[in-house]
Amino acid sequence: MKRVRCIWKGTVQDATIDAAGILRDASGRPLPEGEITWLPPFTPGTVIGLALNYKDHAQELGMELPREPVLFIKPANTFVGHMAPVIYPSGVSYMHYEAELAVVIGKTGRRIQREHAFEYIKGYTIVNDVTVRDFVTNMFRPPIRAKGFDTFGPIGPCLVDRDDIPDPHRLDIRTYVNGELRQRGNTEDLIFRIDEMIEFISSFMTLSPNDVILTGTPRGISHVFPGDTMVVEVEGIGRLENQVVAE
Amino acid sequence: MKRVRCIWKGTVQDATIDAAGILRDASGRPLPEGEITWLPPFTPGTVIGLALNYKDHAQELGMELPREPVLFIKPANTFVGHMAPVIYPSGVSYMHYEAELAVVIGKTGRRIQREHAFEYIKGYTIVNDVTVRDFVTNMFRPPIRAKGFDTFGPIGPCLVDRDDIPDPHRLDIRTYVNGELRQRGNTEDLIFRIDEMIEFISSFMTLSPNDVILTGTPRGISHVFPGDTMVVEVEGIGRLENQVVAE
Repeated sequence: MKRVRCIWKGTVQDATIDAAGILRDASGRPLPEGEITWLPPFTPGTVIGLALNYKDHAQELGMELPREPVLFIKPANTFVGHMAPVIYPSGVSYMHYEAELAVVIGKTGRRIQREHAFEYIKGYTIVNDVTVRDFVTNMFRPPIRAKGFDTFGPIGPCLVDRDDIPDPHRLDIRTYVNGELRQRGNTEDLIFRIDEMIEFISSFMTLSPNDVILTGTPRGISHVFPGDTMVVEVEGIGRLENQVVAE
Repeated sequence: MKRVRCIWKGTVQDATIDAAGILRDASGRPLPEGEITWLPPFTPGTVIGLALNYKDHAQELGMELPREPVLFIKPANTFVGHMAPVIYPSGVSYMHYEAELAVVIGKTGRRIQREHAFEYIKGYTIVNDVTVRDFVTNMFRPPIRAKGFDTFGPIGPCLVDRDDIPDPHRLDIRTYVNGELRQRGNTEDLIFRIDEMIEFISSFMTLSPNDVILTGTPRGISHVFPGDTMVVEVEGIGRLENQVVAE
């Protein structure tokens, strides 16, 4: 099941996308995509990201490979839906997309063992972990500002139930900017795998329903500018489109 | 006004502490402190902390003074009330308290100018930003794990209204462990002051009601062990007590 939240005629709809790609409201009636506003498919709780979780991306940044997951937190002010504008902050010199498979927690757990990790997953979505590279030069600083601007977390368009993705470690990920393929990877190249991430994070914190783990981005980041359209695709989930607009 | 949330006889109470220090329920009746469970005085939104915001503390860690605020995010799983146990994780070698004045946002704002910053403050509380120093050795890593364990964010006991603290930059801060004074400072020594913090953070993110800014901790951190009682005092707010217990 692909679950969507959107606004249609002023009302929040818990909708779904059927096998033919048709958006339907809770009673099954088709919704006119041209008339809706997409929302994040759920309200995220704590959102924890993994930096440098693809070898080729760590190499493109000239970084050592991590020996344990390198974590950051993406705050609530960043999350917007499919088709929402992403604001290019004035004065920055390098803003880029990061296409990521996002894991959505469905059950409360602490000290989850790797072999039980998948039981705690509700499903998967896509996040574009937009980042201003200007503020990541000093590695002492957690990337709160770099990744924390309002609108820097497009999420969606849908939440796909866990069992509809038989192998989340074999999904193609692609980013197109204005239709041009700029980033391509596959989740088979994750350094830390989903079950390891859940084990590691829950070793110190309780994971709760709607908490999210951003699994990292592959090689291929590049500068985007106001007017550019970013489309992030994850196989089996969908395509998340957002336009960059000037502040 | 000092605002408290607590549980008494199975019900959440919006209570207050009067000028004589008496805890009273919403209708003014005294509540028996021995029979209540203290909750965080409100449910925190995004909680952003400043690392190294007292010169003497930066020096005790052997760190350069920051040229702009060094931020981290404290996740929701950490927050517990006054008198709640703080869990000492098994296997760690150095866990410590950090006494901090916490600023609570009361009004939504973005790009708040320094001279208007105080208009966005609802009030003040105390946070003990408990940290496992083991995981802060690699400065590349944001201190998610170091500061993110369940129960690592005692907060309270009360929220004091902004106007009851005429000068938040002149408050004594003290931590006692088992009655012994271990940490002492004054908010007059903050490197980045409260209005600067609000201006800086809101330059990239919208601040919303119940978001919190942790202003940093002064010199005097030390190891605490299971069985120790930590008491953090901030002048004009109160004392926040929590016992460390083994996992």
